[in-house]
Amino acid sequence: MKKSSIPRMPAVHGFRFAGISAGIKKTGEKDLALIYSEVPSVTIGLFTKNNIKAAPLKLAIKRLSVQNKSQAIIINSGNANACTGPEGMKHAKEMIVQTAGILRVSSDLVNVSSTGVIGEQLPIHKIRKAIPDLVQKVSPSSLMDAAEAIMTTDSFPKVLLKKVRIGSKTGTIAGIAKGAGMICPDMATMLCYILTDISISHRLLGRAIKDAVDRSFNRLAVDNDMSTNDSVFAMANGLLCNDPVTRDSKEYEEISSTLNELTYDLAKLIARDGEGATKLIEVIVKGARSVTDADRVARAISGSMLVKTAVYGNDPNWGRIIAAAGYSGVKINENKIDIYIGRVKVMRNGIGTNKEKQAGRALQNKTVVITVDLGAGDKLARALSCDLTEKYIAINAEYRT
Amino acid sequence: MKKSSIPRMPAVHGFRFAGISAGIKKTGEKDLALIYSEVPSVTIGLFTKNNIKAAPLKLAIKRLSVQNKSQAIIINSGNANACTGPEGMKHAKEMIVQTAGILRVSSDLVNVSSTGVIGEQLPIHKIRKAIPDLVQKVSPSSLMDAAEAIMTTDSFPKVLLKKVRIGSKTGTIAGIAKGAGMICPDMATMLCYILTDISISHRLLGRAIKDAVDRSFNRLAVDNDMSTNDSVFAMANGLLCNDPVTRDSKEYEEISSTLNELTYDLAKLIARDGEGATKLIEVIVKGARSVTDADRVARAISGSMLVKTAVYGNDPNWGRIIAAAGYSGVKINENKIDIYIGRVKVMRNGIGTNKEKQAGRALQNKTVVITVDLGAGDKLARALSCDLTEKYIAINAEYRT
Repeated sequence: MKKSSIPRMPAVHGFRFAGISAGIKKTGEKDLALIYSEVPSVTIGLFTKNNIKAAPLKLAIKRLSVQNKSQAIIINSGNANACTGPEGMKHAKEMIVQTAGILRVSSDLVNVSSTGVIGEQLPIHKIRKAIPDLVQKVSPSSLMDAAEAIMTTDSFPKVLLKKVRIGSKTGTIAGIAKGAGMICPDMATMLCYILTDISISHRLLGRAIKDAVDRSFNRLAVDNDMSTNDSVFAMANGLLCNDPVTRDSKEYEEISSTLNELTYDLAKLIARDGEGATKLIEVIVKGARSVTDADRVARAISGSMLVKTAVYGNDPNWGRIIAAAGYSGVKINENKIDIYIGRVKVMRNGIGTNKEKQAGRALQNKTVVITVDLGAGDKLARALSCDLTEKYIAINAEYRT
Repeated sequence: MKKSSIPRMPAVHGFRFAGISAGIKKTGEKDLALIYSEVPSVTIGLFTKNNIKAAPLKLAIKRLSVQNKSQAIIINSGNANACTGPEGMKHAKEMIVQTAGILRVSSDLVNVSSTGVIGEQLPIHKIRKAIPDLVQKVSPSSLMDAAEAIMTTDSFPKVLLKKVRIGSKTGTIAGIAKGAGMICPDMATMLCYILTDISISHRLLGRAIKDAVDRSFNRLAVDNDMSTNDSVFAMANGLLCNDPVTRDSKEYEEISSTLNELTYDLAKLIARDGEGATKLIEVIVKGARSVTDADRVARAISGSMLVKTAVYGNDPNWGRIIAAAGYSGVKINENKIDIYIGRVKVMRNGIGTNKEKQAGRALQNKTVVITVDLGAGDKLARALSCDLTEKYIAINAEYRT
C-alpha cells in the first residue's frame, strides 16, 4: 500500500469520511469506515445477483425499496457477515442503530456494508467499541482513510474524483472501491461508493448508475467468482445547489458520461490490482454484428484462464484468444477474424501472421490491449481483466491462514 | 509418466495400435498414434461445441454425417492443426490419404485427430516420413503406446478396459483419453477413443455414447476453457460376433452402464491429472428440485477458481462453496442447505458448524468429495474437478516456450 504517495483528497461538498482499525483484521490494519453526508442524500443501491446475499445486502435491498434517501454508510472489512443466519442480521442492524444514534440521524437513513470472509460471525463487541471513535473522526478530508478501511486483499486504495460542469457550477463525483478477488463479469464489483454534491433526481441517478456499472464493473473479470456482498451505492446530496437535474438533458448527459468514465477507471484500478496480477488486460471486440455479440466475445476472452496465463507468461498465444471467441456462443467466421496484441496483428483472416516476436514484446507492457475484429459488422464492446499468476493461487490458497 | 508401472494391456479383439515419435514434439516424446480395426467399425463422433473447429474435426464431422463406419484413426499430438486455413485442411487430408494407402483401406474409412498448439502449421514433412513406420508398427498389444502418443501436458497415459457380458459372450470396451488443460464442463473432453468388439447398431452406440459423455466429460472442469479440438470417437467392430444389439434391451442397458462407468472413470483420471493438480475433486449436489438444478449447482462449484484454490490450500472455506451455489442461477434457500467436506458437515441450514479442523483434515486426501444438500427435493448430480495450483499457472504461462 503506497500510502504516502497518495495525496489527501479534497472533499466532496457536504460529505465526511472516517476509517479506523477496530481489530476485525488480525493484521491491525484499518477495517471500519464511515461515509456521512451532512444532509439526507438521494441514494441508489445495486447489489450482487448471487442468490446467497450477505445480511447487510438483505437489509439495504429492503430499505432502499421503500426509502429513496440515506445519510450514512458504515462499512467493515475483514468479515463478510454472509451465511451468518439471524445472529448476523442482528449484528448488521446493531451497527446501523448504534451509528445512527451517535450521528443523531434516523436509523432508516443509515446503511451497512461488510466484506471479507464468508460464514464467520462478526466480532460485534469490537465493532461496538470502535463506532464512537469512528463517528468522532469523520472529516471532509478523510476519504482516503475510508478507502483504506474497506480494503481486503487489495494492495492499494482505489479513489477517483471527477468534476462535472452543471450550468455555472462545478460539481464533484467521487468514487471509492475495493476489488481484488471474487470478481466476475456478470455482476457489479466488490464494493463501490459513489458520492456527489450534484442535485439530481432519484430516477435519473439510478439510470446513470445502472448504465455506468453495466459498462464497467459488469465487464470486469478477475476470477469469474461472484461474491455474496457485491454492492454499489451512489449518494447525491444536492449541496451544489444546482438546478436539480430531473430530465434527459445536456446536464444529464454530462453527469452520465462522467459516471461512465469514473466507473470504468475504477474498474481498471480493480483489474490492475486483481489478486496477484501484474498486468491490466483490456479486451476490445469490434466488427461485431451487434453489441451483444461483441460483449459476449469480449467477456469470454477476458474470462479465459488460458488467455490470462499466456499474458502473464508474455506468450502471444493467439490460439487461446480465438478459441475463447469460439466458445463465447456467438456465431463467428474464423476466416474473417483479425486479432491484435497491442498494435501487432497476430492473426489475419483466421491464420497466424508469424509476428510472435513483436507481439511478445507488446505483452511486456503493464497494460495489454487485445483487439479482436470479427469482420461481421460495426459494433464494439470492451472488457477488463488481469493476468493470472502464481500469486493469485498463493493468496487464495492461504486466504484465511 | 510412470510407464513401467503400467502393464501391457490385452487387446480389444480386432483392434491394433501404434504410437511413435515423429519429431512433432520438441522433446522427442511419442506424438503420432494409430488406431486400426481389422474390419470396418460402426463409428460415432462427438465434437467440441466451440465455433472455431480444427481442420481434422471439420473433416470428421463431414464424413461421419454421410458415413456410419470407419476403420482407422491417425492422431498427432504437439500441434492442434487449428486456425491453419486451407493449408491445414490439406495437411489433414494428406494424413488420411497416406495412412489409408499404406493400410490398403478406403480413405473414406480413415479419420484424423490433432491436439496441441493452435495456429501453427503441422510439420507435415515429418509426419509424412513417419507414417510408414507407424503403420508397420501396429499391433494388438500396443494400446499403451497409442495412449502415450496422444498426450500433451498429461503426466500419465489414460487407458481403461471394461468387460461386458452379452448373452454367452464377453465383450471388451477400451477407452483411451488425453486431458490435462483447456477443459470445460460444456463440452466432451479433449480426446477420447472408445473401442469395442461388441456388435451394436449405429443408433444405439450413438445413444449410449452421448449419454455416457453427458454424465462424465461434460461434468468435468479443469479450467473452463473449451478447446477447438475436443473429440470423442467410438468404434464398434462387431468381431465378438454376438447377436447384434439393435434394440433397447438388457444387453443395451449393460453396455450403456459400462460405458457410463468407463467414461466417468476416464473423466476422473483427466481431473486427477488436470494441469498442475494435486487432488481430484468430486462435487455431489443432492436434495435438488430437478436434475438440471443439481447439475447447474454442481458445475458452478466444480468450476469455481476460489473453491479449487481453497481445496489446494486445505482450507475448508465453505463460504466459497455456498457463494458458487448462489451464483449458479438456481433459486436456492440458504436456510435449508447443508454442506459436507468429505464426511464433515461444515454448514447446517446456512450456518457454519465450527468443524474447520476436521474438515481441514478431510481436505488433505488425494480425493476430496464436496457434498451439497439443497434441501429442496430428491434429485442429484455430480461434477468432477481438480484443485488449482501454482503449477497450472507455470505450465500455461510457459506452454510454448
